[in-house]
Amino acid sequence: MSVLLGAQEYYKGIGQIKYEGPQSDNPLAFRWYDENKVVAGKTLKDHFKFACAYWHSFNGNGSDPFGAPTHLFPWESIQDPIEKAKAKMDAAFEFITKMNLPYYCFHDVDVVDYGNDIVKNEQRLQTMVEYAKEKQRQSGVKLLWGTANLFSHPRYMNGAATNPDFQVLSHGAAQVKAALDATIALGGENYVFWGGREGYMSLLNTNMKMEQENLARFLHAAKDYARKQGFKGTFFIEPKPAEPSKHQYDYDCATVIGFLNQFGLQNDFKINIEVNHATLAGHTFTHELQVAADHGMLGSIDANRGDYQNGWDTDQFPNDLNEITEAMLIFLQAGGLQGGGVNFDAKIRRNSTDNADLFYAHIGGMDTFARALVTADAILQKSEYKKFREDRYASYNSGKGKEFREGKLTLEDLRSYAVEQGEPAVISGKQEYLENLINRYI
Amino acid sequence: MSVLLGAQEYYKGIGQIKYEGPQSDNPLAFRWYDENKVVAGKTLKDHFKFACAYWHSFNGNGSDPFGAPTHLFPWESIQDPIEKAKAKMDAAFEFITKMNLPYYCFHDVDVVDYGNDIVKNEQRLQTMVEYAKEKQRQSGVKLLWGTANLFSHPRYMNGAATNPDFQVLSHGAAQVKAALDATIALGGENYVFWGGREGYMSLLNTNMKMEQENLARFLHAAKDYARKQGFKGTFFIEPKPAEPSKHQYDYDCATVIGFLNQFGLQNDFKINIEVNHATLAGHTFTHELQVAADHGMLGSIDANRGDYQNGWDTDQFPNDLNEITEAMLIFLQAGGLQGGGVNFDAKIRRNSTDNADLFYAHIGGMDTFARALVTADAILQKSEYKKFREDRYASYNSGKGKEFREGKLTLEDLRSYAVEQGEPAVISGKQEYLENLINRYI
Amino acid sequence: MSVLLGAQEYYKGIGQIKYEGPQSDNPLAFRWYDENKVVAGKTLKDHFKFACAYWHSFNGNGSDPFGAPTHLFPWESIQDPIEKAKAKMDAAFEFITKMNLPYYCFHDVDVVDYGNDIVKNEQRLQTMVEYAKEKQRQSGVKLLWGTANLFSHPRYMNGAATNPDFQVLSHGAAQVKAALDATIALGGENYVFWGGREGYMSLLNTNMKMEQENLARFLHAAKDYARKQGFKGTFFIEPKPAEPSKHQYDYDCATVIGFLNQFGLQNDFKINIEVNHATLAGHTFTHELQVAADHGMLGSIDANRGDYQNGWDTDQFPNDLNEITEAMLIFLQAGGLQGGGVNFDAKIRRNSTDNADLFYAHIGGMDTFARALVTADAILQKSEYKKFREDRYASYNSGKGKEFREGKLTLEDLRSYAVEQGEPAVISGKQEYLENLINRYI
Amino acid sequence: MSVLLGAQEYYKGIGQIKYEGPQSDNPLAFRWYDENKVVAGKTLKDHFKFACAYWHSFNGNGSDPFGAPTHLFPWESIQDPIEKAKAKMDAAFEFITKMNLPYYCFHDVDVVDYGNDIVKNEQRLQTMVEYAKEKQRQSGVKLLWGTANLFSHPRYMNGAATNPDFQVLSHGAAQVKAALDATIALGGENYVFWGGREGYMSLLNTNMKMEQENLARFLHAAKDYARKQGFKGTFFIEPKPAEPSKHQYDYDCATVIGFLNQFGLQNDFKINIEVNHATLAGHTFTHELQVAADHGMLGSIDANRGDYQNGWDTDQFPNDLNEITEAMLIFLQAGGLQGGGVNFDAKIRRNSTDNADLFYAHIGGMDTFARALVTADAILQKSEYKKFREDRYASYNSGKGKEFREGKLTLEDLRSYAVEQGEPAVISGKQEYLENLINRYI
Repeated sequence: MSVLLGAQEYYKGIGQIKYEGPQSDNPLAFRWYDENKVVAGKTLKDHFKFACAYWHSFNGNGSDPFGAPTHLFPWESIQDPIEKAKAKMDAAFEFITKMNLPYYCFHDVDVVDYGNDIVKNEQRLQTMVEYAKEKQRQSGVKLLWGTANLFSHPRYMNGAATNPDFQVLSHGAAQVKAALDATIALGGENYVFWGGREGYMSLLNTNMKMEQENLARFLHAAKDYARKQGFKGTFFIEPKPAEPSKHQYDYDCATVIGFLNQFGLQNDFKINIEVNHATLAGHTFTHELQVAADHGMLGSIDANRGDYQNGWDTDQFPNDLNEITEAMLIFLQAGGLQGGGVNFDAKIRRNSTDNADLFYAHIGGMDTFARALVTADAILQKSEYKKFREDRYASYNSGKGKEFREGKLTLEDLRSYAVEQGEPAVISGKQEYLENLINRYI
Repeated sequence: MSVLLGAQEYYKGIGQIKYEGPQSDNPLAFRWYDENKVVAGKTLKDHFKFACAYWHSFNGNGSDPFGAPTHLFPWESIQDPIEKAKAKMDAAFEFITKMNLPYYCFHDVDVVDYGNDIVKNEQRLQTMVEYAKEKQRQSGVKLLWGTANLFSHPRYMNGAATNPDFQVLSHGAAQVKAALDATIALGGENYVFWGGREGYMSLLNTNMKMEQENLARFLHAAKDYARKQGFKGTFFIEPKPAEPSKHQYDYDCATVIGFLNQFGLQNDFKINIEVNHATLAGHTFTHELQVAADHGMLGSIDANRGDYQNGWDTDQFPNDLNEITEAMLIFLQAGGLQGGGVNFDAKIRRNSTDNADLFYAHIGGMDTFARALVTADAILQKSEYKKFREDRYASYNSGKGKEFREGKLTLEDLRSYAVEQGEPAVISGKQEYLENLINRYI
Repeated sequence: MSVLLGAQEYYKGIGQIKYEGPQSDNPLAFRWYDENKVVAGKTLKDHFKFACAYWHSFNGNGSDPFGAPTHLFPWESIQDPIEKAKAKMDAAFEFITKMNLPYYCFHDVDVVDYGNDIVKNEQRLQTMVEYAKEKQRQSGVKLLWGTANLFSHPRYMNGAATNPDFQVLSHGAAQVKAALDATIALGGENYVFWGGREGYMSLLNTNMKMEQENLARFLHAAKDYARKQGFKGTFFIEPKPAEPSKHQYDYDCATVIGFLNQFGLQNDFKINIEVNHATLAGHTFTHELQVAADHGMLGSIDANRGDYQNGWDTDQFPNDLNEITEAMLIFLQAGGLQGGGVNFDAKIRRNSTDNADLFYAHIGGMDTFARALVTADAILQKSEYKKFREDRYASYNSGKGKEFREGKLTLEDLRSYAVEQGEPAVISGKQEYLENLINRYI
Repeated sequence: MSVLLGAQEYYKGIGQIKYEGPQSDNPLAFRWYDENKVVAGKTLKDHFKFACAYWHSFNGNGSDPFGAPTHLFPWESIQDPIEKAKAKMDAAFEFITKMNLPYYCFHDVDVVDYGNDIVKNEQRLQTMVEYAKEKQRQSGVKLLWGTANLFSHPRYMNGAATNPDFQVLSHGAAQVKAALDATIALGGENYVFWGGREGYMSLLNTNMKMEQENLARFLHAAKDYARKQGFKGTFFIEPKPAEPSKHQYDYDCATVIGFLNQFGLQNDFKINIEVNHATLAGHTFTHELQVAADHGMLGSIDANRGDYQNGWDTDQFPNDLNEITEAMLIFLQAGGLQGGGVNFDAKIRRNSTDNADLFYAHIGGMDTFARALVTADAILQKSEYKKFREDRYASYNSGKGKEFREGKLTLEDLRSYAVEQGEPAVISGKQEYLENLINRYI
């Protein structure tokens, strides 16, 4: 069937992307990402576990609130949902394999179209799980994580797990159950919750407390079910402050960690940090990485970049050398990710309409991370960066400073010490020096 | 002495501000704030406990990063720090009394200038505490809360309780001890921590985890000391996302509540919410009120407004009728504030240089809150607002919805319910209707 | 045919919206908007020329980048484009008439679906123009302005009049020609250009200078054609800084006015100011009104409001009493709009799914403008607002100040005057006083 | 006198900063900036004309709205204004010379403290002009531009050239006259106007039209005076959208160019673009460069960077490799700057308190620009970047596209062409490919 054939040959003419080294002139080759290169004791492949995001690359069609689709996939014209889903998956695995991406990630509705009938949706998903199993086996590509889309269907317009109508919540549960079953069946290493509609559009009609309690209960039910089915992986919450909801409950890392601790979810859940979500929350990517790492919660990364001049999620591919290098300093010092990987939750621009554009985008993103990791490792190994930071806090390692950290000093003790020592010396933070140091290693 | 005389007569010519009712033509009278008016079972005076912020009104001089002071106080030319402090306090109490403000709030260095000698600073503050005691006795004005300024002195440029140098931290402790002593001596009802420098300017030189642990330990030491001295009031943390630090640790209510719970401080501390800080964090004022209220943490309010077009704290006086009315809906439903009051952490514009301007500003602010509270009470009592919200969540009050809230349903149970019930009806959130309803009562 | 019947009865059960006065309890009545009320010498109907925006109310379906449509119109299921368009127009005129909106506005593709064949599109539009003529005749509703949608079709993804490919530009011209013909045929009073894709996504691939020159030439061609056809109305440019383009050339009023003057378009074009576009550009609505008015360019208003916490166009219905009252102060002082009216370029929220919601939204918007205009008129007539502003600039009305304005003083003259007069007195701007004054009249 | 001695030896111990090449380990050496290196036909020294900003480096004291000065200069304790000014200038030239900066820039009040007496201020400035002349002669350092500070003094709180009080305007004129005299005497190559208070804090009390007309008249008077004195240099306007004013009239390049054209100032004035001002206006630095270049108005650059997460001017030193490389692409294609240079309008962080920090900051900034220029030149010379852009617009170089550009086609002609040619092909903008290309050359 010709359309299916079109799907299978979607990226025809572009061969496998390989590492050719920094001097290569080939724009369809990696200059920095060599999957076997060892940095800080691990290959780049193992550090990053790069994953392809099914939704942006194989469902995202270039439409925006002001314009119709520009990325037209051959499988869109196939009527039968299973045939369509298979054609899409053929193209997806063709791309993933050519790009040397070791992992992929999906929402349930990315893989196959859903209708309103729960049982039929489950059957469709199961059919595609069998198809995907075989694809994974042939290619060696693995599932980094699965998730359920609880935000696109109109029934979720007032929330899924936080919907004022219990009946809607139960539909969300049904979808999560099927997505968990699929994730487990495919050997998925983790499972993600992103609560795009879990929040509010107007506080005037919202009972925030009840909604958050329902969300916690919902997550417990999901986790308990998965564990009962033998799932050993990690659950991730992906913070985002707003959009599509005016305010989303999973605002940022600190908010999510507070929520997980409040409701006893902290042992099963970690954080999936998206770069553009960090910046929308008024933070930097590095800030969110550090907060998560400090709480032992740095689970996974959704790699992209935002446009600081817009207020919404532009989901561009990473290319900022300074930003990613500073991120890799934290990444390496935190010992990497706990369970997760680096998923390209990024999309090519609406007017990037050549097949090759999706390759360029991923090449740029993977090269940026690879170059940044190599640079960060050099800074940590060769420069005085680490020593500078350690020395800066040396006063807490001995004497009264140490006693303070051990909880041995009262407010009066502290005052006495201050009186005794007198006015402290002014000590430069040396920010410009450190910023220069980063740039010298890029 | 002529300069002192000038100070004592600073607001000469403006009599006491009184309530004259909504039809009054007098711009120096309240139209809405009648301190004895009873709304929802309490007088407006008791609802709000309006407080004057010493710093903005009697230290703030109209300077900004691009310009010199424009608000020139007569006491600024007095050399002796105690004489200067007394002249300032005379003017302050003159203003507070004329404005009918029942409370005031201060930082240590607002009341009297500090040098670098801890013991001398303590003596100065104690002298002024005696002077203030008498002022309070004569006027009936009370201290809503005290605090220590741990952000203006150069020694705190890298933080106070989060400084990399333990010696600086101990100076912060000395200052807090003296400010606690003063607050207790003056019958202060609460004590506030605002950590303007507790955060970082660059993550490159920062150990965030150690700094936050030190902050928690510091707060424990302060709380333990105050309790030992018999202080029964509440401690408040005042969240702000940034400025002056690039990133402050007390980002917003959710972050602070997570921190307090993590370090066992939740029983002694509540939140002091500032309007402009809420908006700088990407939230609304109402959002922050609701988050605090839902956690039983709604302690106090720093009333002002920001400019949504700037990214910094403009600290303007409140005047937005829609914003404050919606806030008062939450305020009333939460049962008001726990321990605190409404402090005008607001400043007149740099080019508002008439003595009367400070009066106009407070009149506008107090009238806005009074009008908003009366309006909100009417909405709650007379409209179907409350019933609408309750009905919206009715599905959780009985049957399976109730069982879900009680933790009795598994993910499989939820799925079965969804299959059984089929696709739920679409239910409007009726946001425009509710927004109209608010405006109809204003 | 049942679906058509459904369309014709779309708003069945909601009668005509009438003015019932400020005490009315009826949420489906105006409290403030009385079309015959005379303010400042004109009826409210004539001041505002309120218009319904076809696109948001009859094409907008509640979808967003993260979710499927929630506003499901009965005509969407009609296959024949003309039958569908007629059913939609029946519903539109039913709504417009019930709401007492004297005007409407449309894009070509709102009225009838377009395909890729220019000639067929023209025929479809002409058919609907005949249908609309009869609708207008029956109802007395008039066309405030027409426009062509040059941003939704994929061919415009790199711009229409600014497309790097001349062939695309010529398609834009064809669409504008047909939309001008339709506007003229329907007695449209104005014609609008909104250049959603006239800008760039990346400067890296853009020749800004050539694109702007092409835009100017395109506008000249359109204007020349319309004048030749006898069109006497005004052309409007609608500024917006970004979205969907990263950067749009018609950034704000000042930018557009500079562009019109540069290319000799200033005599035929004025500005259509959208509230939410003003705030996205970092301005206030009042700022943009004032800039346009000062250049004699205040043509029309697209009424809505944005969410200051998001960075995109939320297009909510107006409800901010302070914002609109201040806007009406400028509106009245500028003598109203030049040719245009107040078009509700606003949409109900995605989760506002009752038919009544569209009525509530327009009632709220119209009442807000009416209340604001009445309030602003009272401020101008009864308060000392105008006198205060005039007095503030009195030094330029006589003596040296007047000579300066007349260009008679050199820099040396000015210096001599300064030396002679010495240091000037400090004069308060009295911002808080003026803000209180506004609130007292609301 | 010891304090003076301290001033003269302020940067003792840090030798001259030299180019040591990309492999150098010396953090007090340039790795990229070699003043004699020739790129695109000019030395780096001539391309950039790097200038030191007197205000940030020798007057800025590290204070912020929440904290006291941390950068304590030895000359601050000198009582006599001239002695103090000389000590400061000694230190300034010591620094400038060590840094190899060929230029400097100043405001009148940077050079010497002003009081309220115009004549005395003029005398002080003249004295320092003589001192500076000798410094310039000895060092070879030149004055890139001078300016008058019309924003810090309280008299300018309501504006200088836009003040409602004519007497204040005349004081501004006196200051500009003296600053022009000084600039001319020192061979200053340009003169800058930055209107920090030329705007409004509240539209409620503002007559924008009259204020802008007065501003234009003021600029004419200044220009006429300077030309009469034989000044041949360029006048620059420096746009900024806000801060300290809520809204500044010189919002961005497009606004300023429109203003200059409206008032007949376009032949004498060009634009001085500050990076952080560009981003505060919602633009990128590259956008503002391109707008200015397209109008032949690209005069000078104030180099720094902002923090996209704050809303105010952080004035950090440039270090973003991607941002500056893209800027240099436009810089080179525009043929560089017209009259101006690259002035570091940047300040070290408040907690950067070592003398060396000012050196690190300038080294980082100069190296970033040098590296970016070399990279951009390579992209233009060696890659297909230029060809790609030219090809993209090829349809306008011949045939109907060319006729359109020549104004020969009517709207009907364009429509006929569209009908004839049919639906155009979709052409990718290739943004990701171009972004990769930039990164490959960094």
